[in-house]
Amino acid sequence: MTVVPLRILRGECLEVLDQTLLPGEERHLALRDVAALCEAVASLRVRGAPLLGIVGAAGMAIAAERGDASDGALRAAYERIAATRPTAVELASIARLGLEAALAAGQSPAMRRAALWAFVEGHLARRMAEDLDLATRGASLLPQGCAVLTHCNTGALATGGIGTALGVIQLAWQQGKLERCYATETRPLLQGARLTMWELAKLGIPGTLLPDTAAASLIASGRVQAVITGADRIARNGDTANKVGTYGLAAVAARHGVPFYIAAPVTTIDPSCPDGAAIPIEFRPPEEVGGFGGVRWSPPHVAAYNPAFDVTPAGLISAIVTEQGVLRPPYASAIAALTGQR
Amino acid sequence: MTVVPLRILRGECLEVLDQTLLPGEERHLALRDVAALCEAVASLRVRGAPLLGIVGAAGMAIAAERGDASDGALRAAYERIAATRPTAVELASIARLGLEAALAAGQSPAMRRAALWAFVEGHLARRMAEDLDLATRGASLLPQGCAVLTHCNTGALATGGIGTALGVIQLAWQQGKLERCYATETRPLLQGARLTMWELAKLGIPGTLLPDTAAASLIASGRVQAVITGADRIARNGDTANKVGTYGLAAVAARHGVPFYIAAPVTTIDPSCPDGAAIPIEFRPPEEVGGFGGVRWSPPHVAAYNPAFDVTPAGLISAIVTEQGVLRPPYASAIAALTGQR
Repeated sequence: MTVVPLRILRGECLEVLDQTLLPGEERHLALRDVAALCEAVASLRVRGAPLLGIVGAAGMAIAAERGDASDGALRAAYERIAATRPTAVELASIARLGLEAALAAGQSPAMRRAALWAFVEGHLARRMAEDLDLATRGASLLPQGCAVLTHCNTGALATGGIGTALGVIQLAWQQGKLERCYATETRPLLQGARLTMWELAKLGIPGTLLPDTAAASLIASGRVQAVITGADRIARNGDTANKVGTYGLAAVAARHGVPFYIAAPVTTIDPSCPDGAAIPIEFRPPEEVGGFGGVRWSPPHVAAYNPAFDVTPAGLISAIVTEQGVLRPPYASAIAALTGQR
Repeated sequence: MTVVPLRILRGECLEVLDQTLLPGEERHLALRDVAALCEAVASLRVRGAPLLGIVGAAGMAIAAERGDASDGALRAAYERIAATRPTAVELASIARLGLEAALAAGQSPAMRRAALWAFVEGHLARRMAEDLDLATRGASLLPQGCAVLTHCNTGALATGGIGTALGVIQLAWQQGKLERCYATETRPLLQGARLTMWELAKLGIPGTLLPDTAAASLIASGRVQAVITGADRIARNGDTANKVGTYGLAAVAARHGVPFYIAAPVTTIDPSCPDGAAIPIEFRPPEEVGGFGGVRWSPPHVAAYNPAFDVTPAGLISAIVTEQGVLRPPYASAIAALTGQR
């Protein structure tokens, strides 16, 4: 089965799968105005950096469809969408590209609406193609009959295509190379347990869940032939920020000679960022630690250390897989060649 | 405040703190017969290897107090207690020492009862003294003004004394050397979040909770000057089995030059075990992964990889702190000297 986290219904609405209800319930929401779309983003019903880019662009199309499509109305819609989750860069940046496409289409509201729907459909199509290119390059790195370990959720629920790291895993499965995917729970928000395990089941891929604490034991046991994760930001020396917990997996994989791969689109590379120390790390509320979903298991009001990301040094990364090519160490020169920076 | 996980009421009962209700409720149970005692053990109301040793011995005293204290009755009580949790070695081994003390006390039921109560009180006193000796040796390794990271629960709730790793931390705090204790949640059973954070609050020690995924980030950040955990079994080359997740902490600590200490009584060393590969690892039910306490966050019936322990290679351990001395690498000779084996 295919995982479809959203559908663009041109001229009408954006339909999204409410990810907060997964894996218990599959409910689709029709987002018919900007208010509903912003609520869905703010409540994390739809999440994942690349997916939010599509949502941002769709929000502009919906605003033009419902409103007057004037310069002022479109700019106001853009500001409202961009402010919904300030740390989700693609939400704003792709919405802005949509705004620019609309303004460039002339003064006619009908033409602006057509340009916006065309933009969001084109953007989704490009994302899907990029995921496929990335998956093809990534799957070629995996040996026949392998099992892999992944972290967090990097599948269709995050990107709208087949995903990044989970896209590689899905393609390797379809190619008959992959026997099993191990997934960490990924505390504190449990995206691995909730979303990755759900996607694996949907796709018919044999999946095994593990507590984050068991990952080092799993790698040491020889059960996995690769570890593969996504990335949130890659510095120009190859240091990579990703969901907290990634660095520990990479450190243990290196000790056992298990390759550790990053799978991420080229847009994840930030050539303005010299190294991992320059990547800002978001700290999240202490309430996420010591409990989940209304259940608390720690004493109340405990202090918590709760960074959203950690940084994996370039030296622990066997390869960075992008839709444009597989980067190998030394990353500084590989990244400079890819991004045209020096 | 002091954490008191059990009290021996001579001639009467064993009073235990019901650990399954922590941290939400502090309820003490009076265990007045062997059936109640076995139920408390089987339901994990009382847990922790050294603490179960005390419970096993107390169970023998209670059996003699309630029953006829004949050879047959005492042997039957021993068999029943030992069978309650077959993997908890001290439960059976200390109950057996109690049985032997009773049989050696002659035929008089009164003398046997007196011998059993004396044995369990003496055993508890020895445990408390050993914890204090261990803590004194361990605290001497910590620098002034330090913060440390620990894993799982190794405090009074586990040993009946002041604990092993958490005993070291408590003493360092009392000596004014320690500023903060960081504790992992310790999935899947969350002993760090539930029990260690509760003990730290009781003792007035500043504590910070973190998801297991954030431990590598914490160590890399320079916030902790040592990592210290307990141990379940130590092979004669120093390889150490402990709560799953320990190995990953040790691997990351080594990368950052942060000392990694094991704190465990000498009885944890198994001279018959040559190395970590020879330590059997218990795998626990898949239901523990993907949920907690009646809440499930993974899809139903997922496969899980759920080992209770992992093995930290001796090469990653800066020192093994016991009540009889601090062992340093190479551990094979240090352990042989301590245990009198070669």
